[in-house]
Amino acid sequence: MISSNAETEAGQRGPADHAIREQVVTAAKAHFIRYGYAKTTVSDLAEAIGISKAYIYKFFESKQAIGEVICGGALGAIDQGFAEVVASARTPTEKLRKGLETMVESSTKLFFSERKLYDIAAHSCLEKWRSSNDHWDRVLQRVSDIVSEGRKKGEFERKTALDETSRSIVQAMQPFINPLHLQHNLDLVPTQSNEVIRLILRSLAP
Amino acid sequence: MISSNAETEAGQRGPADHAIREQVVTAAKAHFIRYGYAKTTVSDLAEAIGISKAYIYKFFESKQAIGEVICGGALGAIDQGFAEVVASARTPTEKLRKGLETMVESSTKLFFSERKLYDIAAHSCLEKWRSSNDHWDRVLQRVSDIVSEGRKKGEFERKTALDETSRSIVQAMQPFINPLHLQHNLDLVPTQSNEVIRLILRSLAP
Repeated sequence: MISSNAETEAGQRGPADHAIREQVVTAAKAHFIRYGYAKTTVSDLAEAIGISKAYIYKFFESKQAIGEVICGGALGAIDQGFAEVVASARTPTEKLRKGLETMVESSTKLFFSERKLYDIAAHSCLEKWRSSNDHWDRVLQRVSDIVSEGRKKGEFERKTALDETSRSIVQAMQPFINPLHLQHNLDLVPTQSNEVIRLILRSLAP
Repeated sequence: MISSNAETEAGQRGPADHAIREQVVTAAKAHFIRYGYAKTTVSDLAEAIGISKAYIYKFFESKQAIGEVICGGALGAIDQGFAEVVASARTPTEKLRKGLETMVESSTKLFFSERKLYDIAAHSCLEKWRSSNDHWDRVLQRVSDIVSEGRKKGEFERKTALDETSRSIVQAMQPFINPLHLQHNLDLVPTQSNEVIRLILRSLAP
């Protein structure tokens, strides 16, 4: 999540691989899961690790900057599941269907198993944090790659602009893959999410 | 919104066409628009009209029952706009495209022109009030009628079950026609909503 160019990434500061950075993130994750993002302060984290608040600020510009790392991890895991399923599927149709199904599943699982982490992810999508914007860029790129492959193989139609097709697929799936929206649609998973996935696949017919 | 069988409809009581009922709804609408649904009490309304709280409760079971009528009116206007556009369009494809575009437009307009009414509509969708459930039933029925007509005329594919097709269309449009979700997607209207509408139309190709 953190490159060596940490300074430029969503409020990250100082050396990227410093042990303290990892300690802060670990403590923050535990606190956020237990008490929630809103109720945790940077002072709480400093106290938990036994360092000063000022020392934490050497690595993170703000509480949000710590939240970004944790949110990036949660959303990254969802994206990673998508990537793994896509890698093991044979055809572009199967890649898209299974990839989207998996995103719905893992987002739903995050809600039920790690609700506080889910809430940070939803908050991140609401506030358009860097971590969520990066996530949606990755998802869009994955979808675009699959559509592109499907066009080359003659499985998908080619008349619509590739970027429009990809964007509209990700958009139509938002009720089920965006944590901000999914929490209101849990009773529709997986029946109606699968129906929308099938609608998307029909829209791709050559 | 209120039938003569008022007793059975979402907390409505007593005679349907009583003048007091209308006075309460008018006062409530004015209060909700000015102060918001949450901050208005039944006492406020009683005081504004100059009657007792008990008298209001002869007509409405609760504040929500009054909210249902007002929300039903706001959502009903959106549905009405949909119906009018559909009536004047020539082909099923045009009916669906223009009908959905109009729903997006009128929902967006409600947000910017009558924000407090919009908030009640969003709340109603969140809490699955009767007024919003009825609204979604009507929207689904309209979409189903258009798809059915398009199938008969050979414009739309017939392999998928009609109810699945209709449901998935309404579902894919939720980010742009459901007040609960639209408020987070206003910057995507109309470019991305139109892209999703075109995706839906491609999915209907025979």
